[in-house]
Amino acid sequence: MTKIVVVYSGGMDSFTLINLALYDEHKVSAISFDYGQKHKKELSIARDFCKSNLINLEVVDISAIKPLLKGSALTDEIEIPKGHYEDQTMKATVVPNRNMIMISLAIAHAISIDFEEVWYGAHTGDHAIYPDCRPEFLESINNTSKLANYESIEVKAPFINLTKGQILSKGLDMNLDYSQTWTCYEGKEQACGKCGSCVERLEAFSENNTRDPIQYSI
Amino acid sequence: MTKIVVVYSGGMDSFTLINLALYDEHKVSAISFDYGQKHKKELSIARDFCKSNLINLEVVDISAIKPLLKGSALTDEIEIPKGHYEDQTMKATVVPNRNMIMISLAIAHAISIDFEEVWYGAHTGDHAIYPDCRPEFLESINNTSKLANYESIEVKAPFINLTKGQILSKGLDMNLDYSQTWTCYEGKEQACGKCGSCVERLEAFSENNTRDPIQYSI
Repeated sequence: MTKIVVVYSGGMDSFTLINLALYDEHKVSAISFDYGQKHKKELSIARDFCKSNLINLEVVDISAIKPLLKGSALTDEIEIPKGHYEDQTMKATVVPNRNMIMISLAIAHAISIDFEEVWYGAHTGDHAIYPDCRPEFLESINNTSKLANYESIEVKAPFINLTKGQILSKGLDMNLDYSQTWTCYEGKEQACGKCGSCVERLEAFSENNTRDPIQYSI
Repeated sequence: MTKIVVVYSGGMDSFTLINLALYDEHKVSAISFDYGQKHKKELSIARDFCKSNLINLEVVDISAIKPLLKGSALTDEIEIPKGHYEDQTMKATVVPNRNMIMISLAIAHAISIDFEEVWYGAHTGDHAIYPDCRPEFLESINNTSKLANYESIEVKAPFINLTKGQILSKGLDMNLDYSQTWTCYEGKEQACGKCGSCVERLEAFSENNTRDPIQYSI
């Protein structure tokens, strides 16, 4: 049994990740970030899941850093690009240094509650556009983490070599209910089905020959 | 001319650092953090200096992360330890993962304003008690920074092999006015002269055979 802080956004990857940790009978504490993103619905869905599963969740309001994060469609008034996630246009969704910021705060939290590891949900589908989801970044930040404090906190991304479809497959094997997740970058009542994030989600369900249980506006 | 984001606390090390960058005719933008520390006076002194020197300063309020940072005398109701900075008791002043958090945010800011480097004021006196002020940490976080984003932001700590006395010596050579700095961990009108931070400051002035221009309550 390991004590793990899971960076949990409410999306399907980190939902599968937190459930994997529970499935393997680790002790889990979740951390979510409010960084001024448009899609706050993922935060409320994260809260609901943790509440009903008696998992401690820290929602850290770092929206005060919003002025630092210029030029991202996720936080600014730039239109969310439509199309496939791996397209060059999706680079507009990159929040500068996002994973390094979130992992740094998760490490601080792990230390303060005497936990041993930090997990985050990077996967191969992210590699194309997010440098901070690549294995070489993970290896480096894990090394930095161990040097940064007296407590040696291990940073892991158990899905880093899996596709989103493979992650979903793992989750379906665990009988997870994906209606408890939120993926769309637009923060509306129903998922748009058009943004890169929705397109990628729908592809993952299609690969697994399964119907996505959430409702789409298309 | 390099464009540098300087992590600037208002203390004498980062004051010397920002002035070194200006002296070498670099373009400077300063970043300070309000993380719920008791000694807020260093923030107001940082604001005054930047204002009078026409330097852009971002004061980032990350006090919302305070609940994550348990067990530190700088943010909690633990008494600030008296005595020498290198003593074991001074470990109580360690905020978990502080430099990794601040540097991560400074990197994000550098990217958003199209700057090239992040400087912070670690020095040899810090090595004994702060793992995140050691050269191996610097090397690792610099590597992580370069892997984390499309923009390769260099992280530097120009004073990492200098003592506080040697940093002060550099500053005195540049004719800097150290009445524009604040060091004491207690946030009172006059510096206490007793906390580890004050003791170390007074030693640095003594080593340079110079009188500290600030007022002490002892």
